[in-house]
Amino acid sequence: MIAVVGGGQLARMMQQAAIGLDVGLRLLAEGRDVSAARVVRDPLVGDHRDLSALREAAQGCAVLTFDHEHVPTELLRTLEAEGVACRPGPDALVHAQDKAVMRARLVELGIPCPRHAVVADAAALDAFADSVDGYPVVVKTTRGGYDGKGVWVVGSAVEAADALSATSATVELLVEEKVEFVRELAALAVRSPSGQQAAYPVVESVQRGGTCVEVTAPAPGLDPDLAVHAQWIAMRIADELDVTGVLAVELFETPDGRVLVNELAMRPHNTGHWSIDGAVTSQFENHLRAVLDLPLGDPSARAPWTVMVNILGGTVGRLHDGYPHVLARDPGVRIHLYGKSVQPGRKVGHVTVYGTDLADVRARARHAAHWFDGSLGDHSE
Amino acid sequence: MIAVVGGGQLARMMQQAAIGLDVGLRLLAEGRDVSAARVVRDPLVGDHRDLSALREAAQGCAVLTFDHEHVPTELLRTLEAEGVACRPGPDALVHAQDKAVMRARLVELGIPCPRHAVVADAAALDAFADSVDGYPVVVKTTRGGYDGKGVWVVGSAVEAADALSATSATVELLVEEKVEFVRELAALAVRSPSGQQAAYPVVESVQRGGTCVEVTAPAPGLDPDLAVHAQWIAMRIADELDVTGVLAVELFETPDGRVLVNELAMRPHNTGHWSIDGAVTSQFENHLRAVLDLPLGDPSARAPWTVMVNILGGTVGRLHDGYPHVLARDPGVRIHLYGKSVQPGRKVGHVTVYGTDLADVRARARHAAHWFDGSLGDHSE
Repeated sequence: MIAVVGGGQLARMMQQAAIGLDVGLRLLAEGRDVSAARVVRDPLVGDHRDLSALREAAQGCAVLTFDHEHVPTELLRTLEAEGVACRPGPDALVHAQDKAVMRARLVELGIPCPRHAVVADAAALDAFADSVDGYPVVVKTTRGGYDGKGVWVVGSAVEAADALSATSATVELLVEEKVEFVRELAALAVRSPSGQQAAYPVVESVQRGGTCVEVTAPAPGLDPDLAVHAQWIAMRIADELDVTGVLAVELFETPDGRVLVNELAMRPHNTGHWSIDGAVTSQFENHLRAVLDLPLGDPSARAPWTVMVNILGGTVGRLHDGYPHVLARDPGVRIHLYGKSVQPGRKVGHVTVYGTDLADVRARARHAAHWFDGSLGDHSE
Repeated sequence: MIAVVGGGQLARMMQQAAIGLDVGLRLLAEGRDVSAARVVRDPLVGDHRDLSALREAAQGCAVLTFDHEHVPTELLRTLEAEGVACRPGPDALVHAQDKAVMRARLVELGIPCPRHAVVADAAALDAFADSVDGYPVVVKTTRGGYDGKGVWVVGSAVEAADALSATSATVELLVEEKVEFVRELAALAVRSPSGQQAAYPVVESVQRGGTCVEVTAPAPGLDPDLAVHAQWIAMRIADELDVTGVLAVELFETPDGRVLVNELAMRPHNTGHWSIDGAVTSQFENHLRAVLDLPLGDPSARAPWTVMVNILGGTVGRLHDGYPHVLARDPGVRIHLYGKSVQPGRKVGHVTVYGTDLADVRARARHAAHWFDGSLGDHSE
């Protein structure tokens, strides 16, 4: 039995893998009807910041793992002191929770990152901007951001002052150079407590408004040496930070052929969803195998190309209405709906298509996803 | 929401597909801890012969479908009269419930079957044996048999008399010639209420003691015309009998290159388990799509060869003890454990391996399955 904190789509997709492996999931969910709570036996409902709820979830479980990174470090330390194996543990997880801690540690390890500074006031921000040849720069809250929330592009000293005054005084801010990149990549590694690692093929991800919208595996035309280097970065970080389970490393590919680390996530990640249909072993199954310290499965791709496109909440309220068209038009498309209510921009599902012709695979995946969310043919952005 | 009657591994594997499609399963299970009841929200516990339990399961569901074929026909007729869409319906299902009805109908359709007769006494059985060039013959109860139960090979008139005296007088018996076959095949079709069909590649199945132990997809060396003919038989039966969902047709391949229908099943079937990892769309997903009258998914194989080997209850009580060896030895093996207690000969899981070299694929699948069940190297049968 594995305790999983958080009832989102990541926990939901873990359940599909858990059924095959016959691993029971004890879910601590935000509500009775959230995504994962709909598909497991006897979900617990409680707050991930409530120690007693976490204790109840962990009771009798071999390990505790996560759908998200928001459990406070001090609660995880308490659970560990009480004998609960948290995977990843609090000392690793803090690097996915606090961007300032993450940056400091990666620099220490010599991992390439954008230039950055932790700032407390507008003067410091302005000084940083000067040091990186001026605005725009990227300002991030060190904690609590996800999917583009907690991140601003700041174009001038005036905007910088506005951004800082809009932020509560207790929030620490990280400021980073705005990297000129040719595209975004992601390297996903899985690590077990024993130290085994599996690295998935490096993928290309397309973001819009800070949200991942499309992933192509493998990243088309990626220099093989750079791909190996990106995998090495992910595995080195996983090892040095003692990560257990999935580590996703979001990267910028620069015009001069380097990669810089953008963000870390220590859980199954949107850039790994393609692996359910596209890899021998999905990121969800390998996450479970890793946190149980079982040998990992083959992360290889099964097809030359796999494209995953997110279904984002849009104009279509009832996603199931898309089935008659999408399924009849393309018998090979793979659908994953998350059982979430539709809200604008919310990730409510994804589709995956694989095959030998990238243009065909991509067009089919986009058609299906955008039929579901009502954005087909809408190029207004 | 789909109501599923029966909490075995078939319903359990439906749940993996249901999660992806965001289709809720309302499960009517034999107990709180049977295979499928462990992996769905709020399973109902009740008897499939209890009309009120069936009504409770069906309440508010678009359709009702099955993990097994044991729901009495008259109860399904009552549910249908009350507006519940049973898929397959009672008029189709009776052909999977009653072997005498099935044989009569297939003969009427001109579908090739073994020679057979319905007999009530030893004299009639003996007369049938004479008509097919003597013993041995195969005697079957017309209802209630599965996995070799309710089937006897009878070698002489004396054995025939014994078999009949051991059987309750109210049970009708079907007697069939003992077919000389080169191997067993299975053709699996899925049919929607609208009439769309999908036919999976014809597979070879190996039975031991009446239980399926191994399936190879596609059937090696099968004459392409005979493969198409076998698929045609399955699709013709599905159409003529108005089957909805999966129809599995177990076949004998004879030395003179014909196929004869052995058994029918109207639900996902052991000979289709390979499709979870081996086909674009699994039989479980296509069963759900069919009973919801949604367009069907591509049933094509993803690899040249896929081999599925059942894990049968044996000498190993704790199946999970097999993980460290099996997973480390072969990162490509796909594991499916059913969460069932181990009893001798009981189907408690299966493994699947796919690839380009059949001998390699088969050896790897056998090694994994037989490591789990403790029969590796045991050739005592």
